[in-house]
Amino acid sequence: MEINQYLNHKKQLVEDKLDSLMLAADGPFSDHIEAMRYSLFVGGKRVRPILCLASTEAVSSTRALLEEALIIGCAIECIHTYSLIHDDLPAMDDDELRRGQPTNHILYGEAGAILAGDGLLTFAFELLAKSRSSISTARQLRIIRLVAEAAGPLGMVGGQALDIAGENSNYPFEHLQMIHRSKTGALIRCCVQAGGIAGGADEQQIEQLTLYGEAIGLAFQIVDDLLDATSTTEVLGKSAGADQMRGKATYPAFFGIEKTKSLALQAVEQAKSALDAFGPPAAPLVQLADYIYARTH
Amino acid sequence: MEINQYLNHKKQLVEDKLDSLMLAADGPFSDHIEAMRYSLFVGGKRVRPILCLASTEAVSSTRALLEEALIIGCAIECIHTYSLIHDDLPAMDDDELRRGQPTNHILYGEAGAILAGDGLLTFAFELLAKSRSSISTARQLRIIRLVAEAAGPLGMVGGQALDIAGENSNYPFEHLQMIHRSKTGALIRCCVQAGGIAGGADEQQIEQLTLYGEAIGLAFQIVDDLLDATSTTEVLGKSAGADQMRGKATYPAFFGIEKTKSLALQAVEQAKSALDAFGPPAAPLVQLADYIYARTH
Repeated sequence: MEINQYLNHKKQLVEDKLDSLMLAADGPFSDHIEAMRYSLFVGGKRVRPILCLASTEAVSSTRALLEEALIIGCAIECIHTYSLIHDDLPAMDDDELRRGQPTNHILYGEAGAILAGDGLLTFAFELLAKSRSSISTARQLRIIRLVAEAAGPLGMVGGQALDIAGENSNYPFEHLQMIHRSKTGALIRCCVQAGGIAGGADEQQIEQLTLYGEAIGLAFQIVDDLLDATSTTEVLGKSAGADQMRGKATYPAFFGIEKTKSLALQAVEQAKSALDAFGPPAAPLVQLADYIYARTH
Repeated sequence: MEINQYLNHKKQLVEDKLDSLMLAADGPFSDHIEAMRYSLFVGGKRVRPILCLASTEAVSSTRALLEEALIIGCAIECIHTYSLIHDDLPAMDDDELRRGQPTNHILYGEAGAILAGDGLLTFAFELLAKSRSSISTARQLRIIRLVAEAAGPLGMVGGQALDIAGENSNYPFEHLQMIHRSKTGALIRCCVQAGGIAGGADEQQIEQLTLYGEAIGLAFQIVDDLLDATSTTEVLGKSAGADQMRGKATYPAFFGIEKTKSLALQAVEQAKSALDAFGPPAAPLVQLADYIYARTH
């Protein structure tokens, strides 16, 4: 499958860039930086930065703009990583395993893990605000605003708060949608939007990319719910069946496995149809949408 | 004392602005927002936003620029508040009292408090990146960069990591300086710098404001150490003697009370002398430096 080659190539670009952007674990703050680096480099598919890159590619082939997208994608990956560190804390999901490896607080203690998360979140904005040459300061500011909103109290953090509060409670499907949209969907949508803006997309294109981003964000979360219900801990690299154990509402709990699969497929189709006007440069985005669904079987 | 009137007036400006900028605690995320608002409005002298405002006043009297400084100051206050919430957590300093009131996790639980902190930190960058009319996008980006660096892994968060790691260990005075400079000093210096940049300061002025900011950051921390050693829990609104109890190195532990006082005074004098070239518009900054020292008696 062609997409695997694309993913591997981009993943390597992201790994190399992350390594060069991230602080080195030396000097007086080395322990703190080591804790941040551990979670940042312990694994992960780098889906968010790759989405950002693919979105830039959909509107531009200028090398300098792809470089911008790479930096923005790395910043978003820092935010994603911080959210995983904090989600895994004993006070939250209390997970000891993530990507098949010990979670941050198992290795660096609770205080160390809280601060590693705080450090990564703050560092992400340092990266986003870095002096640039290829992108206008107005676009750069718009991207910072977008990322802060997607990751903030009405986005990812707010969604996590809802998720924690809703454990072991019966709530309607609309509430589950709200949690998904904020906790996972907002940051994924933001990758796609930010990539488009970095690439110089016009407002019409940004709107279409937003629709695409919302739809794959939804697909992503449905598939995640599905894998938690059907996969094994070995395959996931984190505890399978954890949602059910915690009494979390999920798509399979509401609709059963088969109907959930068809809802995932529907979201993927919706995502792809938002890209009609982009033509061949959007092929990676199309394949990324298919790739998300392909994880279900 | 004239400065008290100044402080009261500016404090009210900051309270009003914070209230209007901060999200309202309604809608699906109301519990999360309420937890953020609790710590943001539970009290505090608003020293950081006031420093930011006074610094802008030192270089400009344009109303629109003072308004910019107010927003920036509020964003920094959000960051300061998040740092207090996380510092108070059981995994960190485990404090139940702050400003004479229950700490965030006592009221909202550990998970709620971690997320309230995360939300405030992220929201601060949303505020800093908001569309503005009076300030150039280049200056706005420079301020975001400055704040992210001051609050990040080589600044405030890194300093907190050093502080936690250093409890009950004997380390040299130079290490204490490093902790102070990063944990408290960096954000205070950044208020002054950001205020200057918002006001249109030239590079020479920014340099002098940086010297001022570093010196009062130091004075502030020395006085804090001093008050912890000599004041009472009732006066402080947080546990007095906590540093000693935790085996934290402090200025009084290294130098005794009297010598520590003279070091605070020395830092204040240094701060004031950095303002020579600004003339009368810097009077509030001068008085703020004196005010910090006045807390010692």
